Amino acid sequence: MNLIAQRVAALGHTLPKLGAPSANFVHHTQAGRLLYLSGKIGEVGVTANGPVGAGVSVEEGRRQAEIAALGLLAALDAAIGGDDSRIVRVLRLGVFVASAPDFRAHSEVANGASDLFTEVLGERGRHARTAIGVASLPAGCAVEVDAIVEVLEG
Amino acid sequence: MNLIAQRVAALGHTLPKLGAPSANFVHHTQAGRLLYLSGKIGEVGVTANGPVGAGVSVEEGRRQAEIAALGLLAALDAAIGGDDSRIVRVLRLGVFVASAPDFRAHSEVANGASDLFTEVLGERGRHARTAIGVASLPAGCAVEVDAIVEVLEG
Amino acid sequence: MNLIAQRVAALGHTLPKLGAPSANFVHHTQAGRLLYLSGKIGEVGVTANGPVGAGVSVEEGRRQAEIAALGLLAALDAAIGGDDSRIVRVLRLGVFVASAPDFRAHSEVANGASDLFTEVLGERGRHARTAIGVASLPAGCAVEVDAIVEVLEG
Repeated sequence: MNLIAQRVAALGHTLPKLGAPSANFVHHTQAGRLLYLSGKIGEVGVTANGPVGAGVSVEEGRRQAEIAALGLLAALDAAIGGDDSRIVRVLRLGVFVASAPDFRAHSEVANGASDLFTEVLGERGRHARTAIGVASLPAGCAVEVDAIVEVLEG
Repeated sequence: MNLIAQRVAALGHTLPKLGAPSANFVHHTQAGRLLYLSGKIGEVGVTANGPVGAGVSVEEGRRQAEIAALGLLAALDAAIGGDDSRIVRVLRLGVFVASAPDFRAHSEVANGASDLFTEVLGERGRHARTAIGVASLPAGCAVEVDAIVEVLEG
Repeated sequence: MNLIAQRVAALGHTLPKLGAPSANFVHHTQAGRLLYLSGKIGEVGVTANGPVGAGVSVEEGRRQAEIAALGLLAALDAAIGGDDSRIVRVLRLGVFVASAPDFRAHSEVANGASDLFTEVLGERGRHARTAIGVASLPAGCAVEVDAIVEVLEG
């Protein structure tokens, strides 16, 4: 078992299986040492009673961000063929929170993803970040996260 | 006629003329092999009766994503001086859909852009993607798309 | 005093102090010549009476974009250790405007950031850009801006 799967398990989570992309895109692309990971979502249908700040609590939003981050870690793991020594640094996370117009705690929700990345990858998991509140997300999920990671070329 | 214009025409579309940017930015910048393309929008005023999922149907949203993608292809073509052999790979699309809070079919709308890129550029057009639902877009358009493309330096 | 601080002062602004990040992320990361700057926000609580296009005017939104851009310039200045000769080019700005569903003037608001970058950095400040309208932003701010800058390695 490699570092990502080990660390994720030690934190009480399970790395999800990486299914086929849900539409006409790929999980990742790479140019030189830059790895672009497609946006991963939390659980579907979570916003049925309203977005984060209305039907979904901050704590639940944080958990949804964590789920999205687990999806990204699975995509990262696949992209580097399980060889964690190739990970140089997580450069940037984009965190998109389906939000009520008066919601203000986007940073707290986004930390659900950021905390997981730093817990799993340590200093290499520390990243620049942009967190925003969006109108809605694919399949009624509450949070979507994407990433750019610097990796050694395989 | 170069590959992009040819393929676009073969698909029944026309590559739009690339006008001056509508505000204080440029159509593209480049660093090494990374080409950053500014966000391109679909038709203006389309959301007058509401966003996608309310006043605008999924099918119309898909068509608007295609129009935005045509604008990106025109900007890409200009950036590489019409020399399509310089295109290595479309790395990432960002797809922004002006969406109702309960809209869920963002991926279907975004495929309007993704399908066009892969139809025009084949394997080189396959990309990582992030699709989100936004509150509104410039000039009342329904979809905006931006791109990062790996290109050979000119 | 370096170029950024000098130019900002000449324009009647003050470069803000760069505090600790407000959550679990860093102000910037770098891979080769690519510098990723975390999203910076305008003033907190500005959208208490509604987003831009409702409680906040276009002119005020433009000013908030300028404030966010000042935060980015402070982060850029810190990232390059005050050595402005290391700045090659601002590659891309992402501009996120907390917007009413019927708002259309996102470009005008975003120019508050774009104009400042070009006034401070001249040709090197000219950038690709994506501007979108979002549901809400951290801490009730009206505008958030992030950036990717090409810099010489230190």
